Amino acid sequence: MEKYVIGLDYGTDSARALVVDAADGRILASAVADYPRWKQGLYCDPSANRWRQHPADYLEVLESTVRDALSRCPAGTASHVVGLAFDTTGSTPCLTDGTLTPLSLLPEFAEEPDAMFVLWKDHTALREAEEINAACRSSGTDYTMYEGGAYSPEWFWAKLLHILRASAPLAAAAGGFVECCEWLPAIVTGVKRDAGIVRSRCAQGHKALWHASWGGLPPESFFSGIDPLLQGWREKVSGPALTADRPVGILCPEWAERLGLPSSVIVAGGALDAHVGAVGAGVGLHTLVRVIGTSTCDMTVVPAEEIGSRCIPGICGQTDGSILPGLVGLEAGQSSFGDVYAMWRRVLEWPLRAFSGLEGEALEKACRRILPALDEAASALPPGGTGMVATDWINGRRTPDANPLMKGTVAGFTLGTTAPGIYRSLVEATVFGTKAISDRFVREGIRIDQVIGVGGIAHKSPFVMQMMADVLGVPIRICGTDQACALGAAMFAATASGVYGRVEEAVSAMGSGFLREYIPDPTRTAAYAPLYEKYLSLGALTEREIFKGDI
Amino acid sequence: MEKYVIGLDYGTDSARALVVDAADGRILASAVADYPRWKQGLYCDPSANRWRQHPADYLEVLESTVRDALSRCPAGTASHVVGLAFDTTGSTPCLTDGTLTPLSLLPEFAEEPDAMFVLWKDHTALREAEEINAACRSSGTDYTMYEGGAYSPEWFWAKLLHILRASAPLAAAAGGFVECCEWLPAIVTGVKRDAGIVRSRCAQGHKALWHASWGGLPPESFFSGIDPLLQGWREKVSGPALTADRPVGILCPEWAERLGLPSSVIVAGGALDAHVGAVGAGVGLHTLVRVIGTSTCDMTVVPAEEIGSRCIPGICGQTDGSILPGLVGLEAGQSSFGDVYAMWRRVLEWPLRAFSGLEGEALEKACRRILPALDEAASALPPGGTGMVATDWINGRRTPDANPLMKGTVAGFTLGTTAPGIYRSLVEATVFGTKAISDRFVREGIRIDQVIGVGGIAHKSPFVMQMMADVLGVPIRICGTDQACALGAAMFAATASGVYGRVEEAVSAMGSGFLREYIPDPTRTAAYAPLYEKYLSLGALTEREIFKGDI
Repeated sequence: MEKYVIGLDYGTDSARALVVDAADGRILASAVADYPRWKQGLYCDPSANRWRQHPADYLEVLESTVRDALSRCPAGTASHVVGLAFDTTGSTPCLTDGTLTPLSLLPEFAEEPDAMFVLWKDHTALREAEEINAACRSSGTDYTMYEGGAYSPEWFWAKLLHILRASAPLAAAAGGFVECCEWLPAIVTGVKRDAGIVRSRCAQGHKALWHASWGGLPPESFFSGIDPLLQGWREKVSGPALTADRPVGILCPEWAERLGLPSSVIVAGGALDAHVGAVGAGVGLHTLVRVIGTSTCDMTVVPAEEIGSRCIPGICGQTDGSILPGLVGLEAGQSSFGDVYAMWRRVLEWPLRAFSGLEGEALEKACRRILPALDEAASALPPGGTGMVATDWINGRRTPDANPLMKGTVAGFTLGTTAPGIYRSLVEATVFGTKAISDRFVREGIRIDQVIGVGGIAHKSPFVMQMMADVLGVPIRICGTDQACALGAAMFAATASGVYGRVEEAVSAMGSGFLREYIPDPTRTAAYAPLYEKYLSLGALTEREIFKGDI
Repeated sequence: MEKYVIGLDYGTDSARALVVDAADGRILASAVADYPRWKQGLYCDPSANRWRQHPADYLEVLESTVRDALSRCPAGTASHVVGLAFDTTGSTPCLTDGTLTPLSLLPEFAEEPDAMFVLWKDHTALREAEEINAACRSSGTDYTMYEGGAYSPEWFWAKLLHILRASAPLAAAAGGFVECCEWLPAIVTGVKRDAGIVRSRCAQGHKALWHASWGGLPPESFFSGIDPLLQGWREKVSGPALTADRPVGILCPEWAERLGLPSSVIVAGGALDAHVGAVGAGVGLHTLVRVIGTSTCDMTVVPAEEIGSRCIPGICGQTDGSILPGLVGLEAGQSSFGDVYAMWRRVLEWPLRAFSGLEGEALEKACRRILPALDEAASALPPGGTGMVATDWINGRRTPDANPLMKGTVAGFTLGTTAPGIYRSLVEATVFGTKAISDRFVREGIRIDQVIGVGGIAHKSPFVMQMMADVLGVPIRICGTDQACALGAAMFAATASGVYGRVEEAVSAMGSGFLREYIPDPTRTAAYAPLYEKYLSLGALTEREIFKGDI
């Protein structure tokens, strides 16, 4: 009898549902939906780097995408679904009232951005991250040691402290703080209180200072020492930090009804999208998976006995079981990648929106032509053909060596500077950012035999991917599906529901292979080398002299 | 009986003719014309920083603008014209055949850019400037000492050497090399050979290493020591280097006919546009005149006995009589100012030209809306409100401290960066470039009591001019005419034709007063101070580490 599983992938702009045959990974159907409020730009302030998502966005697309995907499957498919699993962006946490209801779902906070999910790329908690870092430095144990040595404003505790400070009424009403990837499984399994819910090993270990060696989260005194506002919060957000192959429950009647699924469906523990995508793409020992979208996430795994108690400096973190259970997952990444191109596209949209006379769909269509045309024009230039050099940290730098104060720089403007030329320098910058991360892994003795590319940019931009192969000087294989995250979630669902005993077996049976391979051109690899040195140099000097917090 | 004079101003994009009453400076009529080939972008290569102008462009607009202006005057005006004078861009020289005919006017070189006028902002002679600088350093006399200590690729000898090297047939055909401001007066007075023509004190002193203390141009051995190709060229380009108040002849019959003027009209010696504009604007002791257009020129005058033999380092030059006869003219300037905004406008035009569907005049009209809209949006931001800092040297740096290898940098890109935000940072950069020049004058003891703004930007952009007053912390008065260069030329014409005995008398009688004054806001002056420090820092870092010739 067939067994189907559903992988649910919650990205930055949209969510997708994938109905998969658990035996071989065959995709029966998928459905994608944009978050409606997010798409309108609600609750966000780009100039302040404030990015919020309303929980209703998630719940609405959950129902619509699952029903939509099932409607495209043969009749009766739903009754053969045995498991589902979520992956989401993160750290993307939200204040709740203690019964797992986000505060923004209460009438009094319905329009309050601080009562919504604080999206991973939100940078409003810069100051709070600094305070947490200072507390770690002055503590007996540096709790950031397994998170690359620096706590990021993009992460759980910085966001919690920032929001508690921002609004006394919210702080008074708050009874819990939950990652999106923990909240969705809890909601659909009918859990009614925050206390003790299953937490995500992946989110806890990479974003919330969780580590087995100090017994989970740092002690209460650590948090209340940073600010009395944090008093009691360790307890409120504690729970078993499980790997994503473990079931957390079965669908509650309400959600079985809303999704059109049997209430016997087993729900797996959630995890962060990139980590789940790494599994979906085929991560393994000595394999680096890069999820390349608005930002990037670079992941690999190593046996615990190989890495021992060593801490890899300057990366995002290392957590036992965060990617594959039983192996230490290593995470690095660029806090902006496709977002760099999107920023440049938005800059170039300005004249179209203001002066073209176009409106509505005609205007959007014209705007959509910008990036393909930039790709075409920029790819005609040789390495360094712009005479420009840029840095990529337009959303701070995540790795190597986190520095949220960093901003991007473009150097080399002349009278002849063009829009495609600036774009090419920005693309080179993002790819040089990739090399900086790869160089760090290698320097720290993490052997990398192959790179697998996943995500929108990996699939859609041969220009960027060929440049990446050229700059890194290693071949890059492109994952056989553009839905690696959702497929990875399906693999976790298949494991949690008992189809497989171990995730690796699910990966072997359900994996999608590779679409194509980018082979580096040694001539271009050599041509990029001096440009990369310029990139490092521009980065170092702007970091030292320009971006020091007062600009 | 009325006496009229004609001021002829040859700018970068267009030429104008101004018919003026020599008694009081009253403007009877004016006419402007774009250079037709230049407007089509012919013979130029922005990516190589190659900018050339065809001599036929100058001759055609000379005839059309003078006839056009006269046609707007009362009948009989032409017969009362007693003098005319030219000012032009420079150093903008051209190879001739030895009979003052530019080589590009010969059929065999008609389409050869190296046979045309090499526009001031052309940077193709970077290498040759370096060689001239090296020769000056190793010579007993540093012949750049009165030109700020560095020879620029924008100047006469670098351009000559570059062109002679570029084409053997051209080098073989070449019999002379003449500045535009020397060529036009020679042509209209019917001079038929290069040898011994009246040269411009202004162009020679600021651009061609002329100085009275070493008897004019450096010796033949200096030039032939740089490259044997220069052998004999000192002789070919020598001639009396006169101030622009001196007559060089009367209109030849051919040009009297073509222009519709009496052949009794006296033609004054030409000079560079900025210097003539300084006179038209009312330059005097302790007064800094800034001509602010595509680039800037900052000028003042000091008595010879006050400056003595001191050399002001890092400026463009100091030449006795280059501005007002009898005083030492000091020149500094930014090699790009309005060009920075034009570059940014062109970048933003790209999507409009590619995707708006607009064509022809509708497209050009949309493009013309860009800069006013940027001004409006950028002026709504406070000092430093973009979080960005930029440098302005998109065409190399002229002063302080010439460095033709410098390029522009924009630092501070974030996810929220906007087109107007980048524009504001570029405007701040150009204005900080102004302060760097002003600071240099003051440091060297050149007293500045007032600033007068002239040129397109001074008249058209209150946003830029208010920022300039705020950043400098001094009031800026805007010249009463937007045709200061042409008016200055008219003043020289009136002096050369004997209406006045000294240029200062012409200035008193014919000056146009001031339109408005920008008063600095002390709060904003204080707010800009730390941003200016960032500008200096970013400039120093990129100069030391990034722009060293290999990018």
